[in-house]
Amino acid sequence: MRCITLLLAIAAVSIAAVQASPAAVPFASHGRRLPLSVAAGLRSTPAEATSERLKGQYNYDVKWFTQTLDHFRFDTNATFQQRYLISTANWNGYGPMFFYTGNEGDIEWFADNTGFVWEIAAEYNALVVFAEHRYYGQTMPFGDKSFDLDKVGYLTTEQALADFAILIPALKAQLNVPNLPVVAFGGSYGGMLAGWFRLKYPNVVDGAIAASAPIVYFQDLTSTEIFNEIATNDFALTDARCPNIIRDGFSKVDALSKTAAGLQSISKAFKLCGTLQPADYATFIGWLEAGLTYMAMTDYPYASNFLQPMPAWPVDASCKALLSTFAGTSDSVAALNTAVGVYYNYTGQTACNNISSQATSDLGVLGWDYQSCTEMVMPMGSDGIHDMFPAAPWDLKSFNEYCKKRWNVVPRPTWAATSFGGFNITAGSNIVFSNGMLDPWSGGSITQIQSQTLVVVNIPKGAHHLDLRSSNPADPQDVIDARNVERAQISRWISR
Amino acid sequence: MRCITLLLAIAAVSIAAVQASPAAVPFASHGRRLPLSVAAGLRSTPAEATSERLKGQYNYDVKWFTQTLDHFRFDTNATFQQRYLISTANWNGYGPMFFYTGNEGDIEWFADNTGFVWEIAAEYNALVVFAEHRYYGQTMPFGDKSFDLDKVGYLTTEQALADFAILIPALKAQLNVPNLPVVAFGGSYGGMLAGWFRLKYPNVVDGAIAASAPIVYFQDLTSTEIFNEIATNDFALTDARCPNIIRDGFSKVDALSKTAAGLQSISKAFKLCGTLQPADYATFIGWLEAGLTYMAMTDYPYASNFLQPMPAWPVDASCKALLSTFAGTSDSVAALNTAVGVYYNYTGQTACNNISSQATSDLGVLGWDYQSCTEMVMPMGSDGIHDMFPAAPWDLKSFNEYCKKRWNVVPRPTWAATSFGGFNITAGSNIVFSNGMLDPWSGGSITQIQSQTLVVVNIPKGAHHLDLRSSNPADPQDVIDARNVERAQISRWISR
Repeated sequence: MRCITLLLAIAAVSIAAVQASPAAVPFASHGRRLPLSVAAGLRSTPAEATSERLKGQYNYDVKWFTQTLDHFRFDTNATFQQRYLISTANWNGYGPMFFYTGNEGDIEWFADNTGFVWEIAAEYNALVVFAEHRYYGQTMPFGDKSFDLDKVGYLTTEQALADFAILIPALKAQLNVPNLPVVAFGGSYGGMLAGWFRLKYPNVVDGAIAASAPIVYFQDLTSTEIFNEIATNDFALTDARCPNIIRDGFSKVDALSKTAAGLQSISKAFKLCGTLQPADYATFIGWLEAGLTYMAMTDYPYASNFLQPMPAWPVDASCKALLSTFAGTSDSVAALNTAVGVYYNYTGQTACNNISSQATSDLGVLGWDYQSCTEMVMPMGSDGIHDMFPAAPWDLKSFNEYCKKRWNVVPRPTWAATSFGGFNITAGSNIVFSNGMLDPWSGGSITQIQSQTLVVVNIPKGAHHLDLRSSNPADPQDVIDARNVERAQISRWISR
Repeated sequence: MRCITLLLAIAAVSIAAVQASPAAVPFASHGRRLPLSVAAGLRSTPAEATSERLKGQYNYDVKWFTQTLDHFRFDTNATFQQRYLISTANWNGYGPMFFYTGNEGDIEWFADNTGFVWEIAAEYNALVVFAEHRYYGQTMPFGDKSFDLDKVGYLTTEQALADFAILIPALKAQLNVPNLPVVAFGGSYGGMLAGWFRLKYPNVVDGAIAASAPIVYFQDLTSTEIFNEIATNDFALTDARCPNIIRDGFSKVDALSKTAAGLQSISKAFKLCGTLQPADYATFIGWLEAGLTYMAMTDYPYASNFLQPMPAWPVDASCKALLSTFAGTSDSVAALNTAVGVYYNYTGQTACNNISSQATSDLGVLGWDYQSCTEMVMPMGSDGIHDMFPAAPWDLKSFNEYCKKRWNVVPRPTWAATSFGGFNITAGSNIVFSNGMLDPWSGGSITQIQSQTLVVVNIPKGAHHLDLRSSNPADPQDVIDARNVERAQISRWISR
């Protein structure tokens, strides 16, 4: 069983959170929870965070808004400070508001990695706002106590949407533009938020670009194994042998893991910083899976160092490297090492691999772990047949046990579909659902057109919300076309 | 200042709740809160409740559903028992579900007084469900402790809508009809709920009949005085002299109230059970206003004993009786007494008038008082110029003070419009807003067509949701036409 969480760009196994305390490793004997929040992990120290920022690329003011803590109860008037970024650089007083519905991380990181919004802000003379999601980044309602069990309960998707619904009219009032049209943007969980925001508050937002938004990756709506199948298919697109060799590599690793000598051999093959212990085996498998699936998610057409320094088309590079190793050694374990090495050590600078490097206590990870234990339950598993990973079916019972132990909550896996509609959203309007079809998350997203005003743009050669990234000379025509569809829809929405 | 609450049929000053405890009479020096929840008052004892029921007119099973206490927090798994009524008598297994979104009162009372749903259930072979709103009727999440300050916080409109959103799929699953179309019905606050339910959960409900639903009776959306203006105009429709005499009557009563002898004289003129005390004067004024406005709200074309035994067209009867008294006496106080007597003593059986007869501790009244102190703030005032009542402008400050003292909450008067859209609902679909134009609540309702799928039906000769009542030989053509529009829309929604 795996429970994947999202970051702007990333699925990631919640091993990070799981490892934060001994009480939080519930799945050692059941399977693994896929790594997640890699990006959050990368930002685990301020120094790292700063070094990741594309400094000065976009200019904005950082501001704070006094936000209602609980929109759905009235026995408290408590407030907190919500951070948002605002840029009037391109705004002429008439252009629309482009509003990014911040997701599970530092809002500056999203602002820096959502070049599309900035690029078209100039075209539309738009006011740009990026709003931070409560309990992420610096928007901590109770400071460093925010994740105390008696304080974390205000972290819900409904509260976050209400925050946005309150913030936007307040900003419009401040600027004295009550009728300014508003377009929401978001990618990944932020894309889910953007789409749901339009569905739930069409009085506040005129349209939404919901990029790579897996709004149907919930129980009873989507196969729990589709994510891993798509990641597998991505490798097969380069060469059908790759998934088979990877599957064989996992199988041999599993056999090796049964003995001390085998664990030694694994440690050597994967250049681990220490000898793998049986208790860490699930973490190790999660680490391998993360390397492979993150390449699928961020299979961008140009070299990037979004999560890790990676070549253009990393899946292609990984598969080819794997084939090369395998051709030389006939060793599927060595080949698997080569494959994940494109993710973990593309630069060749890594002295040894620390499989718990994702085990940060970054608050973004904590926040998503809580959300995934409450309403954002996105069930994920693998069968090892249609995908290349060790079989690990989704196991709600174990997941519930973990969530009860860690957060003292019982997940409500069907609530999100009831609350937000699941597939049944045709009463909504003015949303573009864009999907990079290489992205494993596309398996739980809206990929078929729903109505004239619920537009789907699939990007065959696109990875996780490629369309929201800055334009790049290497962009395939697919994504250029997709962005033009989005422009056309935005123009329609704001001309009402 | 007046703060009106709704019951199925009724606006009513929250004097009842206000009088429940000495702490709850904040407005003696500021003005009055209009009577409300008359119906709830009528049901203040089980015996009365039973005697009001139209026994055996409609048959249903009374059932209970285990409902989630808090849909918006996950740190509790508490549940409560929600009451609902279900009838399969007309259902053929294919016909739609007609679902009444229960409002602030006993659900059986709504079932008994919503004949239209039962009548068309036969036409549509429909399954009929009436769901009780949490904290009303017998649906008390914490029994008789439900209104304790630490327990009442789960009483919100959002929670109630979520209850409905959970209940409907559960019933469909029980009956194994996952794709059954669902139509919501509601009148007054129930109409607001029906409309909002469709706006917020179009995945659960295919369309809604929102009858006499004042969804824009909120701050900054509608004049605070429109309710009293419409009530006044209703009297003027019979004879323009009536409002003037009533206004004069109020004025003379006010002058009399300054002295002990005057209070004696008032007590005699209005046949009060005791001598009016200065401290009860605001209650007395509220009692007079209630009599007049309730006749306007329930100005039905046939004799009814919905709230009180009343003749057909009670406003007309009241105005004519008033004119007759005034013609004989030239005494506007006596005329005012005659006018309200049509409401309070149509049968002539009342030995004396108890102005605190609304001062019940009925839970329905308590519940609405709490809701009106949180998000259902429906500001109401009068200016004594455009209306016939003593001037009493809406006073948010005093209202806030009351709510703080009574419930330890601060009202959020603009939240409902943000949450539910106010006038800005054109992104929604499949709602009929029907309005009896004699009903003072029509002033805060949607009376202009919004789109092809947001249909408005105004009923010039209709009072508060006349269309939802059983058909009657005295029905004006207006309401017959309105019901046919509703049938046509329902047919469209369920044939999708």
